Amino acid sequence: MEKSISHKEVPTAGKPSTPRIVSPTASKMHALVYHGAGKKSWEQTLKPVIMEPTDAVVRILKTTICGTDLHIMKGDLPEVEEGRILGHEGVGIIEETGGAVSNFKKGDHVVISCVTSCGKCEFCKKGMYSHCEKGGWILGYKIDGTQAEYVRIPYADNSLYAIPAGSDEEALVMLSDILPTGFECGVLNGQVKPGDTIAIVGAGPVGMAALLTSQFYTPATIISIDQDDNRLQTAKIFGATHTINSSKENAVDKIMQITHGKGVDTAIEAVGVPATFELCEAIIAAGGHIANIGVHGKSVSLHLETLWSRNITITTRLVDTVTTPMLFKTVQSKRIEPQKLITHRFKIGQIIEAYDTFEHAEKEKALKVILEN
Amino acid sequence: MEKSISHKEVPTAGKPSTPRIVSPTASKMHALVYHGAGKKSWEQTLKPVIMEPTDAVVRILKTTICGTDLHIMKGDLPEVEEGRILGHEGVGIIEETGGAVSNFKKGDHVVISCVTSCGKCEFCKKGMYSHCEKGGWILGYKIDGTQAEYVRIPYADNSLYAIPAGSDEEALVMLSDILPTGFECGVLNGQVKPGDTIAIVGAGPVGMAALLTSQFYTPATIISIDQDDNRLQTAKIFGATHTINSSKENAVDKIMQITHGKGVDTAIEAVGVPATFELCEAIIAAGGHIANIGVHGKSVSLHLETLWSRNITITTRLVDTVTTPMLFKTVQSKRIEPQKLITHRFKIGQIIEAYDTFEHAEKEKALKVILEN
Amino acid sequence: MEKSISHKEVPTAGKPSTPRIVSPTASKMHALVYHGAGKKSWEQTLKPVIMEPTDAVVRILKTTICGTDLHIMKGDLPEVEEGRILGHEGVGIIEETGGAVSNFKKGDHVVISCVTSCGKCEFCKKGMYSHCEKGGWILGYKIDGTQAEYVRIPYADNSLYAIPAGSDEEALVMLSDILPTGFECGVLNGQVKPGDTIAIVGAGPVGMAALLTSQFYTPATIISIDQDDNRLQTAKIFGATHTINSSKENAVDKIMQITHGKGVDTAIEAVGVPATFELCEAIIAAGGHIANIGVHGKSVSLHLETLWSRNITITTRLVDTVTTPMLFKTVQSKRIEPQKLITHRFKIGQIIEAYDTFEHAEKEKALKVILEN
Amino acid sequence: MEKSISHKEVPTAGKPSTPRIVSPTASKMHALVYHGAGKKSWEQTLKPVIMEPTDAVVRILKTTICGTDLHIMKGDLPEVEEGRILGHEGVGIIEETGGAVSNFKKGDHVVISCVTSCGKCEFCKKGMYSHCEKGGWILGYKIDGTQAEYVRIPYADNSLYAIPAGSDEEALVMLSDILPTGFECGVLNGQVKPGDTIAIVGAGPVGMAALLTSQFYTPATIISIDQDDNRLQTAKIFGATHTINSSKENAVDKIMQITHGKGVDTAIEAVGVPATFELCEAIIAAGGHIANIGVHGKSVSLHLETLWSRNITITTRLVDTVTTPMLFKTVQSKRIEPQKLITHRFKIGQIIEAYDTFEHAEKEKALKVILEN
Repeated sequence: MEKSISHKEVPTAGKPSTPRIVSPTASKMHALVYHGAGKKSWEQTLKPVIMEPTDAVVRILKTTICGTDLHIMKGDLPEVEEGRILGHEGVGIIEETGGAVSNFKKGDHVVISCVTSCGKCEFCKKGMYSHCEKGGWILGYKIDGTQAEYVRIPYADNSLYAIPAGSDEEALVMLSDILPTGFECGVLNGQVKPGDTIAIVGAGPVGMAALLTSQFYTPATIISIDQDDNRLQTAKIFGATHTINSSKENAVDKIMQITHGKGVDTAIEAVGVPATFELCEAIIAAGGHIANIGVHGKSVSLHLETLWSRNITITTRLVDTVTTPMLFKTVQSKRIEPQKLITHRFKIGQIIEAYDTFEHAEKEKALKVILEN
Repeated sequence: MEKSISHKEVPTAGKPSTPRIVSPTASKMHALVYHGAGKKSWEQTLKPVIMEPTDAVVRILKTTICGTDLHIMKGDLPEVEEGRILGHEGVGIIEETGGAVSNFKKGDHVVISCVTSCGKCEFCKKGMYSHCEKGGWILGYKIDGTQAEYVRIPYADNSLYAIPAGSDEEALVMLSDILPTGFECGVLNGQVKPGDTIAIVGAGPVGMAALLTSQFYTPATIISIDQDDNRLQTAKIFGATHTINSSKENAVDKIMQITHGKGVDTAIEAVGVPATFELCEAIIAAGGHIANIGVHGKSVSLHLETLWSRNITITTRLVDTVTTPMLFKTVQSKRIEPQKLITHRFKIGQIIEAYDTFEHAEKEKALKVILEN
Repeated sequence: MEKSISHKEVPTAGKPSTPRIVSPTASKMHALVYHGAGKKSWEQTLKPVIMEPTDAVVRILKTTICGTDLHIMKGDLPEVEEGRILGHEGVGIIEETGGAVSNFKKGDHVVISCVTSCGKCEFCKKGMYSHCEKGGWILGYKIDGTQAEYVRIPYADNSLYAIPAGSDEEALVMLSDILPTGFECGVLNGQVKPGDTIAIVGAGPVGMAALLTSQFYTPATIISIDQDDNRLQTAKIFGATHTINSSKENAVDKIMQITHGKGVDTAIEAVGVPATFELCEAIIAAGGHIANIGVHGKSVSLHLETLWSRNITITTRLVDTVTTPMLFKTVQSKRIEPQKLITHRFKIGQIIEAYDTFEHAEKEKALKVILEN
Repeated sequence: MEKSISHKEVPTAGKPSTPRIVSPTASKMHALVYHGAGKKSWEQTLKPVIMEPTDAVVRILKTTICGTDLHIMKGDLPEVEEGRILGHEGVGIIEETGGAVSNFKKGDHVVISCVTSCGKCEFCKKGMYSHCEKGGWILGYKIDGTQAEYVRIPYADNSLYAIPAGSDEEALVMLSDILPTGFECGVLNGQVKPGDTIAIVGAGPVGMAALLTSQFYTPATIISIDQDDNRLQTAKIFGATHTINSSKENAVDKIMQITHGKGVDTAIEAVGVPATFELCEAIIAAGGHIANIGVHGKSVSLHLETLWSRNITITTRLVDTVTTPMLFKTVQSKRIEPQKLITHRFKIGQIIEAYDTFEHAEKEKALKVILEN
């Protein structure tokens, strides 16, 4: 998840994994295990097994690290238990399926969705998988995740996506989380339309995913705002028509100048702090949309004393991954090239080094790192 | 307007009325004139005249008083000039039309919209009349209004609505402002659907208009929240399935009990203070809609630390009156009976007394007062 | 189904039921068995058993007969195999569940949907259950149905709906097919809005369901058209503002008179023959919607020579039952009273007599018959 | 108009122009005048004058010829009076404005919309300008048009669009008719979405406009179907991923092969004969959209015997030009390059030759011709 879940916001947990008591006969694998704030190791542990007829066990081919994993490592999500295998993104090969799994069979290549969907609760039926009563974001959080040689995926039929032979599987890792997050929370909720003027606040991986997917709807003007010139330069290459380094320029003034005082039709918040959300409030045009993607740790000031009469819409969303099939088609048809987001590659055994690189993203000019198994 | 416009939010003013220098030959009329905070009088003044080819002069038959008029009288909108005739609601008879007016002729009965629409600016073409570059809310605010024997209506073709013979014109006064405000800002923006559970915070005239018009979409459960038992009793008669006196009960607890802990699908804010908006934040279900109608004088705390992952939508809106034709049909076909909102009737010469009644709405059990000319 | 499936349109069949070889130990039950065109009997047969982990076996409490059952009996759907148990509507009690069923347990009361949804194919994920790759309409068609003491329901978690204690279960039988059919295919596809003028062509059970559910959206004018005065009288009681007996009056002329020459905003076709569809073409207003519900056996003339420039929308739909949860709430909150549609009641053992009554619906003044087990 | 209006479909005519009696003092100009089927000439006639306060007179800079003009010349629209100046597309300079025109002044450069909108009737308020009670398509049809040195534009404020200095005015001529027609009737009505598979039947100017504008929504697969290899080659250059020459290949078979038997999500009909519409019926996927653009002279067979259960949507539309402001932004920001559609250029005095070229479009490899004044 490019988003953490705060203490109060713990979703209905998935089935807790069985205790990993290493029996002499149980199969083993390696995984990245969380041992409390600041402590992690790549270590031998038990290979997961089918626990429910709707489960699949997947052998990981490629995985990646998310900003949320860093949050967990910092101890920002203390509900994560010690011993948890992290990671909620990846592609792999079906190793084994439970008796009720019908969409997949051993040997199929699949994208793993960061959100687990049971397909049969009230929320799943509405396409709001993020709030699935038995799933939602649980991988690498409530149950063991994908930074491992194998992972157990509950409700496999609804939570995995088949990869056709010959696909660029590295690109498809971006479908686990980052592309649907930028697209659903930012672009769709922001109702980007042809000819629009949009601003994306934050040029990290999710802001970049919003930037790439916003172009599905052909906005005329795309303003990328960040404090890192390197990222802004990348944003320009990815399609931004204007960039603003908000540590050097007054972003509100510059946007009002670009928009002839009108403000932007859509402002996408992809950072998660009060200052960036309030920037969105300051630059939104009458009738416009503020689409929040950022994970916020505290409340923000909503300036209803000016906004009450501005006919604006503000949305929040935990990614549902309901658009994954649509995004899949855009990747397969080369309408979007998410591999552009990949800046570094490691073997999965080098995952500690990969974390280190990703933690120093600005210095390392990192967006997404790929870990190959 | 059931809404005031804050100092910073002054819309593009309409054409300022000519100074009312009483020439010996000019026609006279009576009107309710604002003379600065706390001062008003029913006095003789000049009858308005056609100033633009798109104008009409309308003889008022019935008008009413809005909460916003009280705000102006308190001095909350200091941009209102002394000498301004107040009022932005009413029905009347066309007295005279400018050369470019083609939808109406002398003698036609009309509803006057609180929002003036030029019909040809960028905003009007999008149906966002509230932000009309030359109109918007100007009546009884930037130009002289309807609490008078006559009123000049700019862009008459787009700002008046024909009344068929035999209509209940008292009921139609509610179409000037209160019904479209409750409907557009509350019900439409709140996306009320059949079977939904909705809460309406505030049971004043606009909250009541939202209550009545929400039933166009057949919600299953309608919870009305206020601090006045008399209004709550009326809300029950108007269709609320549950009422909560938030001065006596914990509204959040009660709503969570009614909704089995889920919260409401739509929360309509019809008060305009931080506490009521934050109540909406506390009771909204995952995937729900908070529709703000209230006019806010200060910012509120938006609890993104919990709401970021709740997939909610928050909307603000200054009424556009774009649904007036639709609402007109529902009134004419008796699908809604807005005359229910009328609690008191006066002759227009008694307008000072009518203001007094409306200012003490709780004591007088007043919702809307009708002033007949 | 209020709709038959033509020969060419056979959906992906459900899992064919195992041959009913009566073993000495197998449990028995009674059911209405189809033995080829014109031949049916209420006879002893095998009680169904769990065949897949996603199955449930349901003991029928109440079922009913659909127009489609009559079509099958006439031999219009020759793909129905002899020996098939008919029926796709009903409420019952869970008797047994497969190992992967988690929403229901033995003893739960449930509504059986006429459409089976696997919840995990491309179509189910889009809410288009009618085209479910493994389900769709299969009950009483491709697999054994509900006119029996027991029925096996595939994909039970997605195809059954829990009934709370104390509900009017007779009313809820209408949720199996007729209400979602009228609502989804007619009202939703027809985009009925407050204040609209709509026409419903056909006042049989499905036309009546459209009539009842259209009122969720508060149209101003509802014109019901049929050739049976008794049904038209019932339509009036159910909320039609105008009725037209098209065998006695010129429907087009009368509708143009009612609509001042504009035509209707929405025309709902609930018959299924060319004449009624072409009537819809003749009465639709510019910008209007023709929503087809009827099952058609032949093509119709689409008058594009006039309609090409009329900005109209025509929709077809096999009911998805995706709105069943919404409809459920409207029934439970008494916003709609579908029991009004029930005209006759029988014990399930009298089902042959019930078919006879339903076949002579006009003479018997029958809409829906209830069969109690 | 890329569409003709059939005899029965005559819209409310615009104000008929005054008879062109050449008084000695009246100003003169040249124009292309229709003299009955097959007869036209470039001749001297009266320069138009302001007739209503909402009028503007525009000096034409560039105009073009539409397929509909050819239909008129063939006599297919006998309601066109002899003496009518043809043409409904163009850019020009405001020469004079009536007293109620406020958006434009002498010297402004403007795009002329093929549809005249009064901005104040029921249809205009709904954005359905095509059915404007006083406008709609009247230029070069009911009133004199744009194939002239000057043209009178009724309701100028709502029917003209300002051109900023420095624009490519040739490209903007495509905004008069062809781009909004392809976009509104084909792409918007067809609900093209990212990742979709769409088919466009017809690769003439309007089909090409649909092809270009469909890419605003990033479909994965775009199949262009025509009988002219040259046009298909152009379609490929314009973005088609597949082309089918339906005179050489079985289009249904090939599309089913491309779509793995599913059919297309959207089929856009841009020809206007029964065979092409029925092709759309044959290739549409379950849940898909058939968007008609073509002008049809006779009825087509709608195969409801198969389509009734396919959950499809069919739309018709006379272009409203309500998206012109949106399209304008996409052209100005170079998101689309409509000048690609221009194949030939003439001086306006060579208009007879230009007609000749356009009539032999296939041989001349012509899409749109530009006439410069």
